[in-house]
Amino acid sequence: MLTREENETLTRTNAGTPMGELFRSYWIPVLLSEQLPEPDGPPVRVKVLGEALIAFRDSQGQVALVDPRCSHRGANLFFGRNEGGGIRCAYHGWKFNARGECVDMPTIAPEAVPRLCAKAAIKAYPTREWGDFVWAYMGTRRPLPELPWMEFARVPPSHRHVSKKLQECNWAQAAEGGVDTAHFSFLHQPVASSEDDMAQKAARAVRGYSSQSMNENHVRWMRDDARPRYEVKKHASGLVLGASRRAGPGEHYWRIAQYLMPAHAYTPSATEGQTYHGQTWIPIDDESCWIYVYSWNPVRPLTEEERQGYRTGGAVYPEMDDQWRPLRNRANDYLIDRQVQKTENFTGILGVSEQDAAIQDSQGFIADRTRELLGPTDLAVVQFRRLMLESARTLGEGGTPLGLDDPQAYLVRGGAIVAPAQANLEEAMTMRFGDALGRVQADPIPSTA
Amino acid sequence: MLTREENETLTRTNAGTPMGELFRSYWIPVLLSEQLPEPDGPPVRVKVLGEALIAFRDSQGQVALVDPRCSHRGANLFFGRNEGGGIRCAYHGWKFNARGECVDMPTIAPEAVPRLCAKAAIKAYPTREWGDFVWAYMGTRRPLPELPWMEFARVPPSHRHVSKKLQECNWAQAAEGGVDTAHFSFLHQPVASSEDDMAQKAARAVRGYSSQSMNENHVRWMRDDARPRYEVKKHASGLVLGASRRAGPGEHYWRIAQYLMPAHAYTPSATEGQTYHGQTWIPIDDESCWIYVYSWNPVRPLTEEERQGYRTGGAVYPEMDDQWRPLRNRANDYLIDRQVQKTENFTGILGVSEQDAAIQDSQGFIADRTRELLGPTDLAVVQFRRLMLESARTLGEGGTPLGLDDPQAYLVRGGAIVAPAQANLEEAMTMRFGDALGRVQADPIPSTA
Amino acid sequence: MLTREENETLTRTNAGTPMGELFRSYWIPVLLSEQLPEPDGPPVRVKVLGEALIAFRDSQGQVALVDPRCSHRGANLFFGRNEGGGIRCAYHGWKFNARGECVDMPTIAPEAVPRLCAKAAIKAYPTREWGDFVWAYMGTRRPLPELPWMEFARVPPSHRHVSKKLQECNWAQAAEGGVDTAHFSFLHQPVASSEDDMAQKAARAVRGYSSQSMNENHVRWMRDDARPRYEVKKHASGLVLGASRRAGPGEHYWRIAQYLMPAHAYTPSATEGQTYHGQTWIPIDDESCWIYVYSWNPVRPLTEEERQGYRTGGAVYPEMDDQWRPLRNRANDYLIDRQVQKTENFTGILGVSEQDAAIQDSQGFIADRTRELLGPTDLAVVQFRRLMLESARTLGEGGTPLGLDDPQAYLVRGGAIVAPAQANLEEAMTMRFGDALGRVQADPIPSTA
Repeated sequence: MLTREENETLTRTNAGTPMGELFRSYWIPVLLSEQLPEPDGPPVRVKVLGEALIAFRDSQGQVALVDPRCSHRGANLFFGRNEGGGIRCAYHGWKFNARGECVDMPTIAPEAVPRLCAKAAIKAYPTREWGDFVWAYMGTRRPLPELPWMEFARVPPSHRHVSKKLQECNWAQAAEGGVDTAHFSFLHQPVASSEDDMAQKAARAVRGYSSQSMNENHVRWMRDDARPRYEVKKHASGLVLGASRRAGPGEHYWRIAQYLMPAHAYTPSATEGQTYHGQTWIPIDDESCWIYVYSWNPVRPLTEEERQGYRTGGAVYPEMDDQWRPLRNRANDYLIDRQVQKTENFTGILGVSEQDAAIQDSQGFIADRTRELLGPTDLAVVQFRRLMLESARTLGEGGTPLGLDDPQAYLVRGGAIVAPAQANLEEAMTMRFGDALGRVQADPIPSTA
Repeated sequence: MLTREENETLTRTNAGTPMGELFRSYWIPVLLSEQLPEPDGPPVRVKVLGEALIAFRDSQGQVALVDPRCSHRGANLFFGRNEGGGIRCAYHGWKFNARGECVDMPTIAPEAVPRLCAKAAIKAYPTREWGDFVWAYMGTRRPLPELPWMEFARVPPSHRHVSKKLQECNWAQAAEGGVDTAHFSFLHQPVASSEDDMAQKAARAVRGYSSQSMNENHVRWMRDDARPRYEVKKHASGLVLGASRRAGPGEHYWRIAQYLMPAHAYTPSATEGQTYHGQTWIPIDDESCWIYVYSWNPVRPLTEEERQGYRTGGAVYPEMDDQWRPLRNRANDYLIDRQVQKTENFTGILGVSEQDAAIQDSQGFIADRTRELLGPTDLAVVQFRRLMLESARTLGEGGTPLGLDDPQAYLVRGGAIVAPAQANLEEAMTMRFGDALGRVQADPIPSTA
Repeated sequence: MLTREENETLTRTNAGTPMGELFRSYWIPVLLSEQLPEPDGPPVRVKVLGEALIAFRDSQGQVALVDPRCSHRGANLFFGRNEGGGIRCAYHGWKFNARGECVDMPTIAPEAVPRLCAKAAIKAYPTREWGDFVWAYMGTRRPLPELPWMEFARVPPSHRHVSKKLQECNWAQAAEGGVDTAHFSFLHQPVASSEDDMAQKAARAVRGYSSQSMNENHVRWMRDDARPRYEVKKHASGLVLGASRRAGPGEHYWRIAQYLMPAHAYTPSATEGQTYHGQTWIPIDDESCWIYVYSWNPVRPLTEEERQGYRTGGAVYPEMDDQWRPLRNRANDYLIDRQVQKTENFTGILGVSEQDAAIQDSQGFIADRTRELLGPTDLAVVQFRRLMLESARTLGEGGTPLGLDDPQAYLVRGGAIVAPAQANLEEAMTMRFGDALGRVQADPIPSTA
């Protein structure tokens, strides 16, 4: 439970807010690279952290992210011409490059241009492409931080799949769903009339996850132990969050997520050798966000079957239209089917991603955390909030929040393992990853890269 | 004409407002029973008096009306599972019964449950089913008042028909249309090129009313006497409101409505033996309301022809879609047809109910009663406002408004009669109903019921 | 660049604002005459300068423009009956004539009518029909000013074409587009891969303009000289605004617009004998306006080909639906086609009118003029703002703004001419129109009219 003031701090991300500045101090994804497929292609509107911007890929292939307002008369550069190393306003032809510099003012006499040019620059944010996303740096720190060494971005393109999905609520409650792995005992469960019935329904319930990572046993263990024991450890880029449930005799089933600053989480399901999934919550404004989603396998290329599954809805990917809006959404009650809810799964909604979105949206556009009754299974949520509020405070006091100066600290994994009942989180992690915090032992990219 | 403050008092019904508390002190319909057809069926969103709630029918058939916010983390119980005597939250499985008690907290260790359970209860309103409506009691009075003995609810189901209809304006101006029987001389009139033309057009104009209650003569009398003489009497549950017009020589045509606290009105048209109609205005919020509508015949079952007429639009029933939204509504200007307005009826809009809705909506989302020019034919409107404002004041001062402690006082009727010109309201009522105020002489349900 | 306060003054036009009062002090078009085709036809909703009104054509053919609120109980007269010299409220039959007088109160006893009638009058604005528009006078000046002697309204109906178009932004930035003729060097340019390619693309780019007024040479001159020299002269009804560009050797191509108070502009393209075009910006509210558009030829009737071109989109006329809403609009990004933008025209948007709307809308619902970088080619915009702010101040101080007492001062023309390079604006105007300010020498209507 938070105070009203803490809840505001956690959820508000416009420029000048503590959380807004925290997001801006990190590199964050703002687009899929595929949204800007070619040099001099159409510009794209981008709204991020409450700021309305446009992006375009210039003639050299560099992605620009700029204020859409032409400094001459305020026309919107979205309607401009992306050509010859910049975007040219359609009203009177002023042109701006990817750094926001005004590089042509055809209505101005040549002798007056130098004086005006300096005033005419528009706001532009540095961008990089990394892991098939366009990342932006909207903060003030110079020199720029390094991009985080997230594993999905470091494996060869053949080894990853990326996308994004629209979520119609505040970023923080959606991120809470990512660290709260306890809810799998309910929200994502199949409804089986008998144990015979379970196998098939469990498989349908976890569509898109590999059958090694999420099989009937895993689903049943989660159903049968609704009160996982949580352990949370802080590390150099965030938190590792483990929850263990009773499994076979003398064994525990550990599901261990990673939360990486400022808003990345890795899902807790992947078993040895299986494909990993991650999600990154980037506010559009305070009542909606883009969730950037990615899957990667460090030891092999993704199969076409995996990709096809992700494209059509499964794992962290909902079924979507061509604007990355889930087909099951707020406006249609996620196509909830009450008969399906009686006989097939816990919600009557199809898809793990969709079930998450539905229940998170249902907490309101901005969840009211002043009225809650938290218990031990909410420990991950509590730790997440504490980390975020502390980090915003640290930044505000001139400090450096976790990970910002330590890009290699992002080279971690989360996943699942069945361990002896007496093992604690660090022991389970060591069994699973060879490291107590899930740090990657064999970087997919040589250190010279 | 009201002061600004009086108009606010009359029209605002959120919790804590004088009129909101007045509505809450009575049982009010909040759903059709048919909206919850079976135990453990889908929950339904209900917005009433500005409060967003959900209703569900539990395993025992009892209707719950509760705050949709799960007390654990604030997920919306609309997406929950209605099963085993309560609704279970889809996020982490907490479960609430129809009294709002938290009856299962599977994420909480058993020993901690008793302590938390008390805190975890959610707001729940008592409900009853009565006359095929679900009624709720949203007030603080305990023991609960009795349900009002409205006749439609006491006759056998075969003798009644009920529905509801959406109205897109404040409740009070819609209710004013129900007591203002003077407007029938205009709003609902046919437009006849000649007296020969009148009969057929009059029949079409009053579609859905019995031809005994509303025939060509009645319509003509209303047309020809645009200034009915009003008499209004207060009684134990509200007001009886009679308006007389010149009829045959030495005769007056009386149309007598009932207004029953807090927001029920019976229409004034029924002649001896004919079917009665009533309407109840329940605010959704201050700019829209549900009008619960009902028809009943105390002496015989309704015919299939009558029911069919009500289902397809007639009398107090508009043509509606399956969400009880009239097909003719604000968004489409009620499908006004200006040619029809020239040659067929006064408005160019089809249907008495639709004509009422159109003109009431047209007064604004909340009518401005500070600018009006009222005359003698507006007496019913004036008396209605006075009653409502007095009742709210009475309740606020700790008193008991009309009818609240007197359920049998609701056993009244309204209707029409042709009486000698010298008869006053009480004499006309006595001729029509055997009682000066329209109190029912032969209760359809024996007093032991 | 304006101060925040000046920008508010320029753009806000509700009753009581300086600019709102300035608009109200002039006759302004509020409807097309064709919107009220016949006596006693359907009333039409009109929103103008933030006021919601209705218009109807009474039995005598006079157009009424009145407050839609019935003074009895506030029902909306839009649903009323237009019959017998007035509009009759559908609720209780009160009737109002075109002067807003209450001429029938059937619910009121005859002896009470005279006393009530005076109170019952509703607001009504004087109207005239002039040039196939309905004009209203919403100001306080009495006696009423004369209608402006705009030439399009004085030529025979055969010689003119009129329409209107919806624009989804504040009036002032749209009007600025009308005086800013510099933007033709960019916004409306074709994109030609070679000079050979130019002729055909230039013709498509200026669709709807006569090929004499706007041919390949004109378009090329505008392309090749992006910094026209502006001269602006104030005259008795507004401003004449000329911009000259290099044309053939020793020649300048002058394009000369007229801006007439309070919000009329004539386009600068017409060459000798060709058809003239004009636009009038009338605020609906502060975030949208109707642009009344008109074309006229003082020396001959318009051809059917011209009319057909205007009806289907060309010159100042966009392609529109039957409610005068452009098919290319804010909601669909004006159907911008990025391929067309690469190879056919500067914006990828079809139509000069549509290109103007797109770029003006793109400045925001109300352009922010506190952040701009104006240069010499923005002189017309600067002069326009100065004129408007001065005029509002003049009116506020009890003075008479330009043209208000001088209807004949509206008898001016704007257009284009190729003149010797040394000619100034007044010399070019004299060459083109025989008068230094473009005053019409041969009035199409004899002075006795």
